Amino acid sequence: MKVLALAGGVGGAKLCLGLARVLGADDLRIVVNTGDDEEFYGLHVSPDLDTVMYTLAGMSNPDTGWGIAGESFATLHSLGRLGMDTWFGLGDQDMATHIVRSQMLRQGKTLSEVTSRLCLSLDIAHPVAPMTDDRVRTTVVTDRGPMPFQTYFVKMRCEPVVTELRFEGAQSAAMSPALRQSLDSSDMLIVCPSNPYLSIAPMLAVPRARAAIESFAGVKIAVSPIVGGQALRGPAAKLLSELGEDVSCVGVARQYVGLCDVFVIDQIDAHLSPDIRALGMRPLVTNTVMETEADKIELARRILDATIDA
Amino acid sequence: MKVLALAGGVGGAKLCLGLARVLGADDLRIVVNTGDDEEFYGLHVSPDLDTVMYTLAGMSNPDTGWGIAGESFATLHSLGRLGMDTWFGLGDQDMATHIVRSQMLRQGKTLSEVTSRLCLSLDIAHPVAPMTDDRVRTTVVTDRGPMPFQTYFVKMRCEPVVTELRFEGAQSAAMSPALRQSLDSSDMLIVCPSNPYLSIAPMLAVPRARAAIESFAGVKIAVSPIVGGQALRGPAAKLLSELGEDVSCVGVARQYVGLCDVFVIDQIDAHLSPDIRALGMRPLVTNTVMETEADKIELARRILDATIDA
Repeated sequence: MKVLALAGGVGGAKLCLGLARVLGADDLRIVVNTGDDEEFYGLHVSPDLDTVMYTLAGMSNPDTGWGIAGESFATLHSLGRLGMDTWFGLGDQDMATHIVRSQMLRQGKTLSEVTSRLCLSLDIAHPVAPMTDDRVRTTVVTDRGPMPFQTYFVKMRCEPVVTELRFEGAQSAAMSPALRQSLDSSDMLIVCPSNPYLSIAPMLAVPRARAAIESFAGVKIAVSPIVGGQALRGPAAKLLSELGEDVSCVGVARQYVGLCDVFVIDQIDAHLSPDIRALGMRPLVTNTVMETEADKIELARRILDATIDA
Repeated sequence: MKVLALAGGVGGAKLCLGLARVLGADDLRIVVNTGDDEEFYGLHVSPDLDTVMYTLAGMSNPDTGWGIAGESFATLHSLGRLGMDTWFGLGDQDMATHIVRSQMLRQGKTLSEVTSRLCLSLDIAHPVAPMTDDRVRTTVVTDRGPMPFQTYFVKMRCEPVVTELRFEGAQSAAMSPALRQSLDSSDMLIVCPSNPYLSIAPMLAVPRARAAIESFAGVKIAVSPIVGGQALRGPAAKLLSELGEDVSCVGVARQYVGLCDVFVIDQIDAHLSPDIRALGMRPLVTNTVMETEADKIELARRILDATIDA
């Protein structure tokens, strides 16, 4: 069975690791959000791609879920001394990724090619690709004005009230070869427990991506990042509330109407199963909180066993 | 008295520190070789400028004379993991300099502007500038073929036998504003104890620089980097030998005929004073070995006290 996983953020990366432990390299393709990419000091940073890569490579910081374990910050400190903004905390090891990526992009390589090369160097067996090789940037429109995603997310710690999300460049972007081909040829599509507005919506904003998912021939499964009315991490709950949506797995599911056959919710939300069904999806109730690697593998197995009609 | 110092390498930086301790910021301008600049990972590295800056800022590694004290190498190690060459040992703190420089150059700033900005951030009072804002690269022609300077110097540890030096781009380069203006307006020109072939010759290869030095109105003083027939550091002695020159301060002085009124040699070479005089220069005999800061200041004072006719 060929599986395509769409991911962004730490929750997405965790499930990808579980999937990668269960599926061979030929049977899993991971496509990642790039709406939160940003340039710092002229270096191209792809936080979601990096989180997936570092997680699959076993390098990620277990405390944060992003960044690299045992990271140091000597370069960042020196950049500060040279008058640079340092609110985006790039570590020394992480910096190497951005340096190599930036050099290759300047040499004319696509982000897909760069990502493949980085994965090869990090001994990551499963293919990882960006959603697009074109420039898409999430702008968060807030009560304090519009701002680039990382400014909202890291510098402002998600404090501004969000009124709208814009995915600049998405309309003229093309799906990456990996996304396009996987949507054509996979048997199962998994929308990881990522932020629907920040990680998945940028992908849907790329022309033809939404339609290709809607007409996807195989099983389509999404996993709620909201458990018991709370986000496991990040601003998903706050965003649902600010954008007028239910702060629950049902609110998430509503974002995926037409895009999803099976919707995975946590045991704690089992009582909301009828609401999921009312949206035209089959609820799959299981433990979705991934603390250990065993949790990730178990969730991956439950998802892979799913069929449209239980 | 307005002083222009031409420098490259560790010996040059040491004398610059001595001069900076004696002269006010308005009275000293330091112009530095850029022939050994190189791009690594798409980052513009200016080793001679950095050595001068780090020395003046009190940041330099006291053991090596180049690089930054207490440096770590986490980014370099990660670059190696990503398949990059790492024979040029860029440290984490140093990396910040190259990141900022590269970003500013890509934004259209000149290397002179970038250098001024870096000096400002590092609280360096005395103006430091590159010899040119244009691209000049030293190619070392050897028995193993021509190679970029840093390949010869760092990767090959100066082992190949040198037959010729080429300064690619020099013929179409222009003197930096600082070099041009200082040659017009200074009272004293000091050629620091730098490698004549690798640090000073690139400057002389820039059109009109040699003529401007020859016709310089003030006192012109050069300091030998060769003491007792040996280079205090680096390949100066090996180069003199391979290029058919005397391996002595006299061999160095011969490179500066017409460019220098006073030639500073070490006490140990006092017996060579007649040979210096025979080249049309007045020998100034003093201690030129700069181990302590007091040594650097003392040598600076001896030089600044010099006049053409003793």
